[in-house]
Formats: sequence, C-alpha cells, structure tokens
Amino acid sequence: MSRSLIAMAVAGVSWLTLDASPAKAEEGMWTFDNFPITRANATLGTNIDQGWLDRVRLASVRLSGCSAGFVSNEGLILTNQHCVASCVAALSTPERNYAETGFLPRSRDEEVKCPGQVAEVLTAITDVTERMQAAGAGLEGQAFTQARDTEAARIEQEACGDAAERRCQVISLYRGGQFKLYDFRRYDDVRLAWAPEDRASTFGGDLDNFSFPRFAIDGAFLRAYENGRPAQTPNFFRWNPEAPEAGAPVFLSGNPGSTQRLLTQDQLHTLRDVVLPLDQLIDSELRGRLIRFGDESEENAFIAMDPLYGLENTYKRGRGRMAALIDPAFMARRAEAEADFRARVAANAALAAEVGDPWAELAAVQPVQRELYPAYAMLEARAGGGSLLFSYARTLVRAAQERAKPPAERLPEYSDSRLNAVRNSLLASRPVYPALEQERLEWWLSKTREWLTVDNPNARALLGRESPEGLSARLVEGSTLADPAVRQALWEGGLEAVRASNDPLIQYLLSIQEPTRAIRTAWEERVQAPTDRASEALAKARFEVYGDTVYPDATFSLRLTYGLIEGSDVPGQRFQPFTTFAGLWDRATGEAPFDVAPQILAARDRIDPDTVIDMTASTDTIGGSSGSPAINAAGEIIGANFDSTVLTQRNAYGYDRNVNRSVLVSTEAITTVLRQVYGMDHLIRELGVE
Amino acid sequence: MSRSLIAMAVAGVSWLTLDASPAKAEEGMWTFDNFPITRANATLGTNIDQGWLDRVRLASVRLSGCSAGFVSNEGLILTNQHCVASCVAALSTPERNYAETGFLPRSRDEEVKCPGQVAEVLTAITDVTERMQAAGAGLEGQAFTQARDTEAARIEQEACGDAAERRCQVISLYRGGQFKLYDFRRYDDVRLAWAPEDRASTFGGDLDNFSFPRFAIDGAFLRAYENGRPAQTPNFFRWNPEAPEAGAPVFLSGNPGSTQRLLTQDQLHTLRDVVLPLDQLIDSELRGRLIRFGDESEENAFIAMDPLYGLENTYKRGRGRMAALIDPAFMARRAEAEADFRARVAANAALAAEVGDPWAELAAVQPVQRELYPAYAMLEARAGGGSLLFSYARTLVRAAQERAKPPAERLPEYSDSRLNAVRNSLLASRPVYPALEQERLEWWLSKTREWLTVDNPNARALLGRESPEGLSARLVEGSTLADPAVRQALWEGGLEAVRASNDPLIQYLLSIQEPTRAIRTAWEERVQAPTDRASEALAKARFEVYGDTVYPDATFSLRLTYGLIEGSDVPGQRFQPFTTFAGLWDRATGEAPFDVAPQILAARDRIDPDTVIDMTASTDTIGGSSGSPAINAAGEIIGANFDSTVLTQRNAYGYDRNVNRSVLVSTEAITTVLRQVYGMDHLIRELGVE
Repeated sequence: MSRSLIAMAVAGVSWLTLDASPAKAEEGMWTFDNFPITRANATLGTNIDQGWLDRVRLASVRLSGCSAGFVSNEGLILTNQHCVASCVAALSTPERNYAETGFLPRSRDEEVKCPGQVAEVLTAITDVTERMQAAGAGLEGQAFTQARDTEAARIEQEACGDAAERRCQVISLYRGGQFKLYDFRRYDDVRLAWAPEDRASTFGGDLDNFSFPRFAIDGAFLRAYENGRPAQTPNFFRWNPEAPEAGAPVFLSGNPGSTQRLLTQDQLHTLRDVVLPLDQLIDSELRGRLIRFGDESEENAFIAMDPLYGLENTYKRGRGRMAALIDPAFMARRAEAEADFRARVAANAALAAEVGDPWAELAAVQPVQRELYPAYAMLEARAGGGSLLFSYARTLVRAAQERAKPPAERLPEYSDSRLNAVRNSLLASRPVYPALEQERLEWWLSKTREWLTVDNPNARALLGRESPEGLSARLVEGSTLADPAVRQALWEGGLEAVRASNDPLIQYLLSIQEPTRAIRTAWEERVQAPTDRASEALAKARFEVYGDTVYPDATFSLRLTYGLIEGSDVPGQRFQPFTTFAGLWDRATGEAPFDVAPQILAARDRIDPDTVIDMTASTDTIGGSSGSPAINAAGEIIGANFDSTVLTQRNAYGYDRNVNRSVLVSTEAITTVLRQVYGMDHLIRELGVE
Repeated sequence: MSRSLIAMAVAGVSWLTLDASPAKAEEGMWTFDNFPITRANATLGTNIDQGWLDRVRLASVRLSGCSAGFVSNEGLILTNQHCVASCVAALSTPERNYAETGFLPRSRDEEVKCPGQVAEVLTAITDVTERMQAAGAGLEGQAFTQARDTEAARIEQEACGDAAERRCQVISLYRGGQFKLYDFRRYDDVRLAWAPEDRASTFGGDLDNFSFPRFAIDGAFLRAYENGRPAQTPNFFRWNPEAPEAGAPVFLSGNPGSTQRLLTQDQLHTLRDVVLPLDQLIDSELRGRLIRFGDESEENAFIAMDPLYGLENTYKRGRGRMAALIDPAFMARRAEAEADFRARVAANAALAAEVGDPWAELAAVQPVQRELYPAYAMLEARAGGGSLLFSYARTLVRAAQERAKPPAERLPEYSDSRLNAVRNSLLASRPVYPALEQERLEWWLSKTREWLTVDNPNARALLGRESPEGLSARLVEGSTLADPAVRQALWEGGLEAVRASNDPLIQYLLSIQEPTRAIRTAWEERVQAPTDRASEALAKARFEVYGDTVYPDATFSLRLTYGLIEGSDVPGQRFQPFTTFAGLWDRATGEAPFDVAPQILAARDRIDPDTVIDMTASTDTIGGSSGSPAINAAGEIIGANFDSTVLTQRNAYGYDRNVNRSVLVSTEAITTVLRQVYGMDHLIRELGVE
C-alpha cells in the first residue's frame, strides 16, 4: 500500500454513501429498465429521456470481459487497447509482433478475426423473476443451485433456441431478488480494425496502472462482421473529437463486472482474512516467476508480456480492495449502514418475521467458507493455474461427462443452451507456449500442495508420487491439445473418445474429477447456496425498506452510470481532471515503462501539445467497465473508460463519492493519433471527422 | 493457510494461557537469573537446582542467529545443519558442493573456519537498569533512543573494553522494564566440524518445514578455536545417545529471537493489516523470481538454494503468524487478557496514576505506523533487498560518516564498542554471485517504487531517471566490493576514501543517505520511541500487577524453557511424538524434496529402523531457538531444537499450550548417522559413545 493511501485511510472520508441506503448523487450502476432519469437530470442539469436511453443501449456492446460501443453504421466498435491485447498477442508472432508495431490495417480487407471474441448488443429485457424463484422454492444446498441453473438454461433455450446470432441470458439482479432475461444480438465474427503500439496504452506500465495523472492512449477498434461483411449497425454513437470540458456531465454505458455492496461485516472480514490473502500471495509468487521468465530471452519476454499485464492488474486491484478492508473509517461507515439497515428491518415486524435473520445465517457460513476456501480455490476455481492446455483438457473431459447425463443433472456451464459457446471457445485457435504452460501448471500444483499441506488427500490425489516440476513437464510435453483438430476430434468423439485418448492431460483430468468435483459440491452446498439464500433475503428486505431507489450489484450486465468530469482533491489523490500530450513528453524518461511509443514520439511535432489524453470522472465503475463508451448529454461519444484509481477499488464494497474516479481516454486523443501518428485515414473518414 | 489450520482457527482452543497473566505450567522463556526452579520441578517431577542451571548456562552457546551447546571439552558444538547452511554454502563451489556431499573432515585438521561465525557463552549477568533508565529520563523521540543507545554502548565499553575474547551486551528485558549487562566469552574462530548432506536435514523441504511428522536429521557440529587450537571447554553437555522417552521432561537452553507477547490489540491489528501483508507479498514475489532463477541452470540452482531456503522459512513463519492474527478465538482470548490487565491496573489508583494510559498512547501510534511502515521497510529496514554488495557499501558509507562524528551523535550500530564487530563482519570473506545480487537489487528497487508509488519523492531519489533493471545492473556490474581487500582499503581510508571512491555502489549509497536516514529518524521518533515508552510503562504495570511470576519477551538472549516430550491431538495437528527411520523410508518417493540423502539411503541396511529421528515437546520456543540443546533432568543432551509446527508460530504473540510443539532432532539419530553413514569415528569417540 502506498503511503498516500494509508494517509487517506487514516484521515477518513467525510462523505461516504453506502449501498444499503438509497443511492444519492452519482452513485449507482443502473439497469436500463430502472434508470433514475429525473434524478440524473436534476443532478447534472441534463435533459435525457427514455428515447435517449434506448439509443444508448442499442449502441452499447458487450465483449468478452469488456465493454465497447458502435461508432459507425458499419459495425466499427471503440474499446480499449487493453481489451484487445489478448487478440493482438494471438495474432502476433515473435517475428511479427503487433504489440510492438501496432495493428494498422490499410483497409477493411486487412482486418483480422480475433479468436473467440464475440460482441453482444442488448435488444430486450424481460422479467423472469417468478419462474426463477419458483424453481428454487423449498430447496436447499446443491439441489437449490441446480434447480435454478436448470430453470435459467430452460428459459434461455426457450427464448433463443439455437439461433447463432442471438444469445439469451438470465441475469440475477439484487442477489436473486430479481431475474431478468437479457436478449442479445450476437456477433461472433469480430475483427481487429486498429490497435496502437502497446506502449501507447501501457505508458507507465503497472506503475501508472490505477493511477492518475495518466497518459495512456488506451483505445482500439474492432469491427463486427456478419456473413463475412461488416455488420449493419444503424444505432451508433456519433464521434465527438473535440476537447472535453471540466465539470461537464458524462454517462458511461458498460458492463461492470462484479460488486459486493451488500456484503455484511462478517463477509468482508472473510475477504480480508482469507480470500484476498491467498489470492494475492500466490499471484505475487507467479508474478515473480513470470518476471524472471520474461527476462530470460526476447521470446520469453514476448510470451510473458500479456499474462503479466493481466496478473499485475488483478494484483493491484486486490491491493486497492485490501486498502478499503483495512481502512477503519471506511469499515466503520459500512458497519453504520449495516446497523441502520438492520434497525429498519427490525422496526417492521412483518418484514422481520418474513426475512428472518440473514445476518446470522451469513455469520454461520463464514467459518465454513474460511475452512473450504483454500481447497475450493486451488482445486476448482484456480485449477490449472491458467494453463490453456489444462483448460482445454478440463473442458473436454467435463463436457463429455456432462453431455452423457440428462440436462437436469448437468453442471450448469454444460447445459444445452451453453454448449455451443463452450464449443466455440474450445475450438478457437490460440497460440500455446509450452514453457509458459509448464510454469503455470508447476506453480499451480506447488501452491496447491503448499496451501492444502502435503499430507492432504486432495493434494495427494493431484500429485501421486510425482513432483509439481516433473508432473507439469510430463503433461505439457506429452499433450497434443494445442492442435485445434485434436480438440475437435475429442469433442466430437464424446466420452468414449475422451476415455480412449492417450493424451496425458486428458488422462490426468479424468483422474482428478472425483476430488475436484467433490470440493466444488461441498463449496456450492455449504457456502454458495446458503450465502445466496441469505443474500436474497437481504436484497428483498432492502427493496422493502428503501424502495426502488436502489440499484443491483454489478453482474457483468449492461448498466448506465453518470457523473461529472472532475479531478480529485483528497489526501493521497490530488489531481486535475485532464492530462495532455505536453504532460506525456514531460513524464517520459526513455526508460521502460516510461518510454513513449516510438511512432507517437516520432510524430511529436505534428501533435498539438494541449490535446487531452486522459480525464477523470465521478462515475461509478468497476472492472468490466473497461471500454465503456463515455457519452455526453447529446449522446455523442467523447471517450472510453479504461481504468479507475487504486482508491476507487473500494467501489467493490461501496461507492465513495470523495475518492471515486473513473479514468477515461478522450476521443480527441484517439482522433489525433489515428490521423497524425498511424495514418488511419479510412477510419477517420468513417468516424465522420473532417 | 492449510485447511486444517483454518479448522483449528474455527474450532478455537480450549486452554490458552496468555502473556499478561502469570505464566502457568510450561509457558515461559525464562532468564537464567529468574528461573522458576520450584515450579518447574513441581510440574515435571524433576529436581534441578541452581548448580544445574549454572552448568547448563555455561555449556550453552549463542551463534549468529542460532543456538547451540558444547558437547566435548575440546570446543565441539552441536547445532542444526540449517544453522551452518550459510557456512556450507560459503565453503562450497559449484564444483565442490558440500551441501550435496556433506562436509566430512577426516580429522580436526580438515575443519574449516566459517566466515563471520562467532560463538558466545554467557558468563555473568549484572543489573544495569538504574543507569539505563536514568539515561533516558525526561527525553523524547530520537533523543530518548540516542541517549539509551549511548549509555548502553558506554556500559558495554566500560565492562569489556576492547578485549577480543569478550563481548558485553546490554540486554533490554520486559520492554525496557529491566536492563541487564550480559558478559560473554567470545570465540571468533569457529570451524565447521561436520555437516551431513543438505537433504538429510531438508528432507521434505519447505513442505515439511514447520510440520510434523518430520524426518529431518537437522544436526551439525562446529568447533570453537582459540589461538588456532580447539578451545578448552570444561563445561559441556554429556552426550546421551539413547532413544528418548515419551512423557519425559526436557529443557531447552537457547536464544529465542523475538516475541511480542505484550502487544495490544491495536498493535496486533497493525501487524495483521499492514506489516505482515507487505512483508509476505513482496517476499512471495522474490520467491517466485528465485524459483525460476534456480530452474535456469545447475549453477543458478546452487546459487539460489540457500537464499530460497531462508526466504521460504520466513514466509511460512509469516503464514503461521497471520493464522493466529485472523483466528477469532485466539484474538478473543488475547483481548480478554488485555481487559483483565487493564482492569487490574485501573483498580490500583496509585499505579493507574503513575502508569497513565499506555494503551491509548499505543493506539495513537498506530495510524502513524501504518502510514510510515512501507517507507521505513523499503528504504531502511529492507534496503538493498538482501544484496551483499549493497550491504557492504552501506556499511562502508555509514561507518565512515559515523566514525567522523563524536560518539554521542552516532547511530548506535557504529558506537565504539560495536565497530570491531562491524569491521569483522564486513571483511569476512563471502562468495558474491552477481546474477543473484542483481536480481535482489532489481526486486528491491521495483517493489520500493511500487509500494511508495512512482511519484513519491523517495522513490524518485532512489531511481532518478533509471529503471530498477538498468540501475541494478549498472551497480552490480561496476562494483568491486566483492573483493575483501577493496573493502578493507575503504574501511581504513575512512570518509575521504569513501567519497573519493568511484565504485558505483559506494557513490549510490552516498547519494541516498539523506532520504534513507530521514525516514529512519521519522520512524524512530514517531513510532519506535513512543512505542518503547508506552511498552515500558506496560511492562512496569505488569510487574506491579503480577509480580515476578512473569518472564520477559524474547530478545535473542539466553533463556531456559521446559516441557514434556509429547505429541499433539488438536484438530489440524494430530501426531505421535516420535518419527523413526522406518517412517523415513516409507515417506520417501525419490522425487525432490522427498528423496532421501543418497549416503543415508545407501546405509539403509545398517540402520535400525526404530531409531528415533525427530520428536516434539511442549517447550516454549521461537525462531532463534534453533540449535538449542535439549537437556534431560540429568543435564545430558538428548537432542537439539530445530523447528516448531506452523500453528506454534502464534507463539510470537502468546503461548498456547494446546498447539505449542517444538520439534527436536534426537542425539540417537545423529549418533547413528555419524557412525553408520558418514564414518565420523573421531567425533563418535570425542562424544564418549562406545
């Protein structure tokens, strides 16, 4: 933790709006069917209406793990460079490394498909709460989870069938207080249309990540295709290339990944004591392994770059979250809000009787969660340590086993409605680097044995009499799963083919199904299900107490948040809302990661130094919001969200108006580099910029 | 954390004796001048007396960071293999690696000096409390620390002068409640007389470390020399090679390093939230770097082995401590004990008035400590990241600067009485591995910049416009400080020579003195001094309330602890008190780290499988106790402490009779391998074994 961060923690915050109470001012990740139009207009001085909301929704795009927006009627999509980094890495080779050169197609013909990337547009929302709640009624443990999952799969299948161009998804809102069916227009041919040099968006590297001032031109273009041609997308955001203004209203339309704003104090303590420490400690070791791995050769540096970027991002976010959990002032305000909520429930006898005591139920889950978390994390949630080959093998083995069962008995991720997506992801072509695969597997096996202890039966089941080093080497060296044709044959051959395979990873995954499925079942029955039930009761009580002035926790579904473009003036986080190219030239040392991307540096004389690069806003965002179009009151796009400050990571647990700042890249900067640096004139024309 | 450990945390413990209350049963790390003879005899059914205590004291040896005991009248010293591992590494080369072969001199002529190793025997104890307390009276902040340090140096100098064969040390006990002058007979020619193959003591590696059952033959012999000849040591422990007995009394005489049993709840929370997380997270990254470093070549594996061993040990101990701090039951009992103590103070009006409110004072220090810790840790306490070249340069620069000042104004580690030891340590010959040095410096610089943030003035002072990678490479490549002659010339040349040096590390250390000394001063004035003052008040109050039934916190000074040889039966820690060679053969897989040391394996047929290897006891130990002679009631040595279980790491904060188990290697096992495996017949004869 930085000194400034601790100073902040000590000083406390004077104004902290918390989840359980009605949302005020800029707080809130609102669904499009319950957006507080009146309040937003009153707060911002704008005049938006339902038609404005609908247009914004239909121009908003969900990517795999990111957000984006259409910016032309021919499927052009603005998102962040870091959202396409995996695609850039997949299309690159050590000899032709687009991360170094930028991906600069001279025309649409040179746009290349991003493996596995899909783009989804939310076209309709239907309430399915009754069906979903009925499905789980009276059930406990895994039966409850199973019934809900099965019902969701059924609803999705009924609505969308097998239509490849649609995706139907039942979204849980308010922790199961509401269920909505989201119907998406789905594009599975998504091509890379432009990415700048990697350093354009990673200037300052991990050091500047989650920081401001910031000088990252974190923009990139994808394009949705249908039938091999650019998709027709009449709903798009008009491109505004002008300089943004301090104090101006801004809306972000995107898919915030996950917040936990109803977590009780007991649950927060479990995160602080058990969950975050395990995650952070083992990730920190992997980080050290990958840093050294990358130092070994040019090739290894290339291989490690993308995984290291993701890992460091996750790790720093964890640091920011931990900072909130150990901040006495923040936790005290959370405790106060919880006490207020409990008092209001208690004061309503009928409600209290109906709700019971979910706080006590959650308290009772914590010792179980504390006991099971290491085994669940290592054997199931983190199984394979990020090895791609391992994940292929696991998908092949589990899908084969599950497809042999009746739909109602399957693990939910292998329900009929999801099998197609699973297959597409499995068969997408991705580069496999054996040295990296081996390092990841070795790390995972050794950390599993360490955290479970060497005499633990599950650790023994994983390793037998082999060592993490020996076993990981044997599995990676012997596997042929890097070849998509091999995977396809095994997928199509089903359980028989899988069992008959002599691929060591397939045989290994078959051999560890019993222990890994058992810990998953234990977790779902003893932790997940009781937590879900109690959380649902809490969410229900919250409705009753606070009415519809509340918004649901983020669930990587489309939300709209609003705020002002403004800087920050709290201890440990003081900055103006804008950075410019003049600041970039000044911060550059020439030493990585403070070296300006070469092509940008070469264009220095052609760039107006006052051009705004990045800006901050008081919008309510979290991971997954990356790439969210930043919209002005007129519905024009003026930037894209790509980050927030490290203090803002507390946002997972509660919006804090004082410190919360989203970080956006400006369309002004993107326009400038498209034109002055990368010569992307066909895109400039498509954006309608003169 | 292991599942079992969490289970333990959840189940709680039914009997937990805590520091603030009078010690009961086996609790206590007692000084030799306040040992509870009567209570120990009553608890154990023994009949020891003052003469017994004196003999044990005079046969006990303090090493650098470890404990040991004389086992012959010719200076032979039993300690742990892991306590001589650095020596073994220093004497080895990649071609002649004693860690692999064992160090097996055929006679005394082949014994080799361990660089920097000293052996110290406590010969006299004098009370100097009045002088020390008078020196600090009425002073605040750094002036207080400085006055105390100066007075301690003066007392030491008056008592020992410059006598090379003595060392005088003022020991702070009861957090400054008492000060004793410990007078040591000092040997600075200490030679390695036997070390088994490294794997003999590291069987099970980091996985079995802090665990039981355990199969580590963690023994080694040193020998003290005087005037080039084996030292005459008439006070020694008679060697008992028999099998130990369950339930038998056992005493450990050694130097437990550091406990914090009077820490308040507020202080414990700072450890949990700020101190341990920083330490553990950055160490975990270094661990990853070193693991990968070691995988790169045979030579790197050799270089990384010893540092990795130490790092993993520290890291796992930290895990054990964190487990205590997040254990609700343990923390609740600590809170109870604190409340009891406070109530007793409050009930005594005169005492309460005299003591004031040290709890509130300590509470007020915590926000400051939380703010300053990252800077203090990174810039001062952990400066250089363990690089030997960096530490040489720092010692040379600081010693030169301090020697130019009047004694009263110097940093305490450069007082006249300590300069000789500093010089000896500086000039001792140690191998320097540039690749490891560079990795450590790079890691330290990059973690410092990360934790302080890139725009922090101190981080900028450290790096200028260089990168951690570039700066560390430049410093290591250009430095000649690996050569002891270069160091000696700079030491003797003093400040002028140091300033004139063109060694880049010397110049670098000169350039960072201002910021690093400033953070040290801030820490000492704003954290250390007020903490010391309040802790002293607490210790004083504890005397008043509980009388002399209490023992002081460990301070790496000689202590005696007692207990029974016994196993454990708490959840997550169930075992019998002994392991045998039969168990070793059974646990061995042949895969590292579960591969038996080759020479031991080759001798399998000659070893009685029932021979006891390791055992556990309820003695009160902590890091630094390693190597402590385990003595039976007759004063014979029956083993040596080398470890404790991971649950025992809570011992830092409070003795927990239920889980506390020290782990000892038996003299029976050592006798067996000396004779049957390594053919050390001259040592067998010297030990008087037939």
